[in-house]
Amino acid sequence: MRLLPALALALAAPAVAQDAPEPPTPTSVVAAAPASDWRPIEPANLLVMDLAPDREGKPRRVVIQLMPPPFSEGWVENVRTLAKAHWWDGTSVYRVVDNWVAQWGDGEDDEAKAKPLPEGLRVVPESEYTVADSLDERQARFAAMMARVLEVQGQGKTIGFISNPWLDSYADEVGFDQGWPIASGNDSRWPTHCYGSVGVARDLSPDTGTGAELYAVIGHAPRQLDRNIAVVGRVIEGIEHLSTLPRGKGDAGAYDDPALRVPIVSVRLGNEVPEFPQPVFEYLASDSASFAEYVRVRANRSDPFYKVPAGGIDVCNVQVPIRRVPSE
Amino acid sequence: MRLLPALALALAAPAVAQDAPEPPTPTSVVAAAPASDWRPIEPANLLVMDLAPDREGKPRRVVIQLMPPPFSEGWVENVRTLAKAHWWDGTSVYRVVDNWVAQWGDGEDDEAKAKPLPEGLRVVPESEYTVADSLDERQARFAAMMARVLEVQGQGKTIGFISNPWLDSYADEVGFDQGWPIASGNDSRWPTHCYGSVGVARDLSPDTGTGAELYAVIGHAPRQLDRNIAVVGRVIEGIEHLSTLPRGKGDAGAYDDPALRVPIVSVRLGNEVPEFPQPVFEYLASDSASFAEYVRVRANRSDPFYKVPAGGIDVCNVQVPIRRVPSE
Repeated sequence: MRLLPALALALAAPAVAQDAPEPPTPTSVVAAAPASDWRPIEPANLLVMDLAPDREGKPRRVVIQLMPPPFSEGWVENVRTLAKAHWWDGTSVYRVVDNWVAQWGDGEDDEAKAKPLPEGLRVVPESEYTVADSLDERQARFAAMMARVLEVQGQGKTIGFISNPWLDSYADEVGFDQGWPIASGNDSRWPTHCYGSVGVARDLSPDTGTGAELYAVIGHAPRQLDRNIAVVGRVIEGIEHLSTLPRGKGDAGAYDDPALRVPIVSVRLGNEVPEFPQPVFEYLASDSASFAEYVRVRANRSDPFYKVPAGGIDVCNVQVPIRRVPSE
Repeated sequence: MRLLPALALALAAPAVAQDAPEPPTPTSVVAAAPASDWRPIEPANLLVMDLAPDREGKPRRVVIQLMPPPFSEGWVENVRTLAKAHWWDGTSVYRVVDNWVAQWGDGEDDEAKAKPLPEGLRVVPESEYTVADSLDERQARFAAMMARVLEVQGQGKTIGFISNPWLDSYADEVGFDQGWPIASGNDSRWPTHCYGSVGVARDLSPDTGTGAELYAVIGHAPRQLDRNIAVVGRVIEGIEHLSTLPRGKGDAGAYDDPALRVPIVSVRLGNEVPEFPQPVFEYLASDSASFAEYVRVRANRSDPFYKVPAGGIDVCNVQVPIRRVPSE
């Protein structure tokens, strides 16, 4: 069942203030967010992947934030085990498909030739693609989200109807948890596949993938993968080092010539990277009033470029604000 | 108002056939579509853009299909005028932003230095971002679409509920017209911005852009641009020559070093390209039963890789099948 549209439509916004000087933009909302609305991303929850330098010798670093509990925990633990074992060092990005994914790891289909995996990896069951949920919990989350929306409206900031970003073709509801786009329906909830999402490549059933072969989404959100593949993270910096790679011409978009593979020099957890001694990144808390206002402004763009506000937004187009921690 | 969800939900599908051998896939549905369900794309409705060869000397050709009437007609006419004048020859791709757009044309902000435009370009009013529509027309389109869905169901092909791909955060309804994703609401309808869409870059109001500066979407569908920018086409081949370009580091993602600009050798209408003497491409007619089945199967993936069908799909994820005309 869908909880949201009727309630959302019932929320008429106050009239436009007569003396409103400048309409808010997503950028201005983020800039005005108080420090208390930002949350640190701990280095231990980052994966730092260094590709071989590009043709000009420039470094190519991709920073991935790992998915927090309770989502995809078994696979995330495997990813940590692989990173601690330095397993990805010397592997490569071996598959790049336009409007789809860039994929890395060993990339060896022949098991006899495959790189041995470290000990301690779990076989994670399909059931962990989702997390148990209940109608009571869904209603409680919705009530909390609407309270934040009302708080924003109470400050007289809104123009027009509050947007309903939670309308979705793939799930009963969508929303945000700990800064991540999450979908829910019936008795479960699960992470969504958006641009930049990092997932666990796998073969057919019953294999759910170890976490050794990973991909990042470099196109329109492939939401049909939700609940079919584990999302273990998202690229928060350097995705252009993946999205600009040449597209593969071999089977399923793999590079047909091994020489085209892009060497991975190293993959480390953020707390093992010398220059990441403390939180380097932070995200705008999705349970903050600033975030509610950010979503509303993104769904109802009123800065001078826009002539018609959309009045809505899809969950993958929200793009949770993540930034480097400002220096003091 | 939304016309669709209640009716769509009322359509329960027949039970799964006991002897169904292989579940259909998007690929199998397209392969099985009869020739009569394909429509030619006339060369006169193509824009063929040749970039300078890449570092290995390989050609880089981008083929764009122009938007058909009644959408964006004034701008499309300008694009034809510019192509016939060979105006883009010697210009460049000068702006590339990750998960956003690749943009080309003159790229000169200083009007005194700008390349003179050909005669005969129209100034197109904002009102042409949309086309007049009415509730009667919307209902008639919906009835025709549902008739095709019922036809597919009558052939016993469906498994599970028919998908409702028309649920959308940005418009009252979405659907397809002449093979293009189109949105509608109240008294108008308009083309949508999806991956690969080509639009007319512009400055602030009241400028709506001439069509000389164009961009292609290379990321998640930026639907907030719908009704704010004219969509004049879509890339149907060679988008990787745009999506893999280095991202710009200058203002708004422009290349800060002019040497990074990617030269455009020529842009021609398809009927002026010697090797395009007849229709080279065709699309799966969006008013065919094959297309209805294609959408349903994409929304309810049941091939072995998928464990949970999504039960829905967003309009930009449908990806209308377009192919080179098979040789006889």
